[in-house]
Amino acid sequence: MLLLKRIIRNYGTTQQYALPITIKDLYKRIVNPPRTVQNVNGWIRSVRLMKKMAFLDIQDGSCLETLKIAIPIKQSDETIFLKRLKTGQSICIASAQWQETPQREQPFELKIEDPLQSISIRGNVTENYPLQKKNHSLLFLRSLPTLKHRTMYLGSLMRFRSFIEQRLMNVLQSDDFVKVSPPVLTSSDCEGAGELFEVKTASSKNYFGKPCYLTVSTQLHLEILAMSLSRCYTLTPCFRAERSDTNRHLSEFWMLELEMCFINDVRSLTTVLESILRRLIESCLERSSELIPEVTLQECLSREDVINRWKMLLNPEPWKLITYTEAINMLSEKHKIKPFEKYEPKWGEPLQTEHEKWLAEAHFQSPVFITDYPRDCKAFYMKTNTPSIPGKETVACFDLLFPEMGEIAGGSIREDNYNALAHEMHRRGMNSSGELDWYLLLRREGSVPHGGFGLGIERLISYLFGNHNIRDAIAFQRSATGTIDL
Amino acid sequence: MLLLKRIIRNYGTTQQYALPITIKDLYKRIVNPPRTVQNVNGWIRSVRLMKKMAFLDIQDGSCLETLKIAIPIKQSDETIFLKRLKTGQSICIASAQWQETPQREQPFELKIEDPLQSISIRGNVTENYPLQKKNHSLLFLRSLPTLKHRTMYLGSLMRFRSFIEQRLMNVLQSDDFVKVSPPVLTSSDCEGAGELFEVKTASSKNYFGKPCYLTVSTQLHLEILAMSLSRCYTLTPCFRAERSDTNRHLSEFWMLELEMCFINDVRSLTTVLESILRRLIESCLERSSELIPEVTLQECLSREDVINRWKMLLNPEPWKLITYTEAINMLSEKHKIKPFEKYEPKWGEPLQTEHEKWLAEAHFQSPVFITDYPRDCKAFYMKTNTPSIPGKETVACFDLLFPEMGEIAGGSIREDNYNALAHEMHRRGMNSSGELDWYLLLRREGSVPHGGFGLGIERLISYLFGNHNIRDAIAFQRSATGTIDL
Repeated sequence: MLLLKRIIRNYGTTQQYALPITIKDLYKRIVNPPRTVQNVNGWIRSVRLMKKMAFLDIQDGSCLETLKIAIPIKQSDETIFLKRLKTGQSICIASAQWQETPQREQPFELKIEDPLQSISIRGNVTENYPLQKKNHSLLFLRSLPTLKHRTMYLGSLMRFRSFIEQRLMNVLQSDDFVKVSPPVLTSSDCEGAGELFEVKTASSKNYFGKPCYLTVSTQLHLEILAMSLSRCYTLTPCFRAERSDTNRHLSEFWMLELEMCFINDVRSLTTVLESILRRLIESCLERSSELIPEVTLQECLSREDVINRWKMLLNPEPWKLITYTEAINMLSEKHKIKPFEKYEPKWGEPLQTEHEKWLAEAHFQSPVFITDYPRDCKAFYMKTNTPSIPGKETVACFDLLFPEMGEIAGGSIREDNYNALAHEMHRRGMNSSGELDWYLLLRREGSVPHGGFGLGIERLISYLFGNHNIRDAIAFQRSATGTIDL
Repeated sequence: MLLLKRIIRNYGTTQQYALPITIKDLYKRIVNPPRTVQNVNGWIRSVRLMKKMAFLDIQDGSCLETLKIAIPIKQSDETIFLKRLKTGQSICIASAQWQETPQREQPFELKIEDPLQSISIRGNVTENYPLQKKNHSLLFLRSLPTLKHRTMYLGSLMRFRSFIEQRLMNVLQSDDFVKVSPPVLTSSDCEGAGELFEVKTASSKNYFGKPCYLTVSTQLHLEILAMSLSRCYTLTPCFRAERSDTNRHLSEFWMLELEMCFINDVRSLTTVLESILRRLIESCLERSSELIPEVTLQECLSREDVINRWKMLLNPEPWKLITYTEAINMLSEKHKIKPFEKYEPKWGEPLQTEHEKWLAEAHFQSPVFITDYPRDCKAFYMKTNTPSIPGKETVACFDLLFPEMGEIAGGSIREDNYNALAHEMHRRGMNSSGELDWYLLLRREGSVPHGGFGLGIERLISYLFGNHNIRDAIAFQRSATGTIDL
């Protein structure tokens, strides 16, 4: 901040060009409060007008806290002025006195002696301004994409997302992972996961000389970079033209994808992932009071339940880890006693949602890694486990299931042997026109054992924040049934 | 790391599942070196085979340094084995002794007594492996998208990018900016900058019910979020179907976009931007020896020149700031004395590259903010300066020019008045079908003065790293003339 001050001085003024003061800044001053404050800005959250006093609650989205403004009323024109104040208006308070209020809910308030002089309305609201003080449902808020983040709950969710992303990146940096930016525009379909979005320009169908798609996963490109940098990750948007219209699917979502070299065992990946997430959640717990609102929405987890969820994740016992085959055995036992509603667990079939729910919720009541799925349930690039039983081949992969959320991450050791990969691609009828030769040939030039995983950011954030629908964990949702309003 | 160890113990092993050791890890051990090291992995950078000794240089992309392996040769089968080692192969060294070598270039080397036992080749190379020890030109390296990042120069550039992104985010976090993720898929064309990419699915032309494009700038959405959170930023890919085929244009590039409320003056933005960049560059300078290779490519800046460039940017004098009108006056004076080659400077016309070059390079020899451009040179959402001379209206905006790079960032105060914005959009024939009503109506519900800027990440990185072509500052370039190879 010294620097900023120096620059400012050179412009010949003292305050004008610094960052405007926020409510968060004011709360930082509690230990050493100023006598007066100038130029405080925000949006009115509520107005309480009495005969001799008025109280305003101001928010500015910088923190959970609101700012209380106390205004003694001395003249009738002040009452007339204060009656014009409405929820949602933006105001500027030119000058106010700091008053400690240890007996009240909030530790201090700002007192204004002359509201006509001190308060100016910067932006009015229409009569239909839809956000009043009470808590609206998320369903209603989703219909207000330009205003909904002004609510305490969704504003906090955006700040929480920022905190999670920032912490994740710090943790990865401390583990020497290099942050990279693989492309969004790609010519290849990573794993046949979901339908692709195709990209064109109005004037030219083939701007790039061949069909071009939006990436569904940057993994294949990430492998190139890992094989140069040893460890890398990206935080990037991915796109799937899904038809699934659930509270766990988005057409545009962000992924943390990580890739590392010189590992042979899927447990290296699960250990790294568990360690990253535990360190992340520990830092959430340290700062819970500034991350989660005291009052949450009725349909979402309370602050207490959120903190209990974090503590469950931080259980000193390592997260459960079982193979797919062990999972099928457990599920079959359970199915004999009390059958699953829709699907009988069968080796060779994907695990269904009801199976995953039973494992993570009813049975383990803990996060659970499921490893070593049948080869034909998974993507072509996963390394086949050896020795293998013909017809019962498994791959060195994992899915991480969280109770009440299901899959939150998945990864694998990649096939690093040229012949084995070429054979598997051929077996699946892939690469007929050589479009993945670049990926295959990477195994011919200093190939190394490597692996990685992808983690859905919105799923992680929703799980940790306790909102149930991942559509609320991204600022503007793009999903199968949603139109693009803006 | 305690945590990781605890988890590992629970799996019943001690080492197997921890992060593999990197060359960077070894260099961290110099102060307290181990006697032996196990399981060191990397790619061979060079082999030097003599009668009684062999030396390998190993790299793993974790840092600038390579690892020297010294191998005394005792038997002829060792010579035969060592002759099989080639540049580009990946190897694993099972066990080696640490030897301090204070008299050599590198502070230590690893000594291997029994190469047949200790060295295993993990991945071979073909006879055509194109990366030999010598420095290749960037033009040649661009033709090797899967291998080029294994070179010291481009590997360093990727690590530098990671450092810059991480530092930028830390600086912004310390200034209480919230990191947000506005959409890539959008229905609106932010500013008519470059041609748009349109997005479709194979099975449905209108997956989202209306035409959908890739964002050229997330600013309009960012304004919504700023008007909820006071200060926010994003680090996000943006897309322009440019026809410009220069070393300063990409079709897919990353932008830092920042938006903040309660500011009226374009100098608030230039001050914030200058402060962010100065703090960033200061941390580069602190770590120059690990960021910039000692030997760079002939066509790029040397380490010394890079550091001089950083020092020029950190000149204690604030960066120059002039208005567009002042710039035109200066340029016209210069034009009278010695005319510009192509364009005469004229008020109302955009500044041409030759004008920008003269200002930043010949005249100021410093970064320079140019503010208050004519309204019709700039986008519709910029706030018009008052009072204004009819026909000579200017807007509260800036471009930041760097010597030898040109525009690196641009921003403005946004029009926050409903009537003024509606009038300007109408004047430009915009919003005829109401597609930007959401943006306009935001000015009706608690509108506040606000502004922001966008900064091209690849331009910033190229400028600070001293490579001249921004295509090398992104892992996989997408540009007007380039095909999508992978």
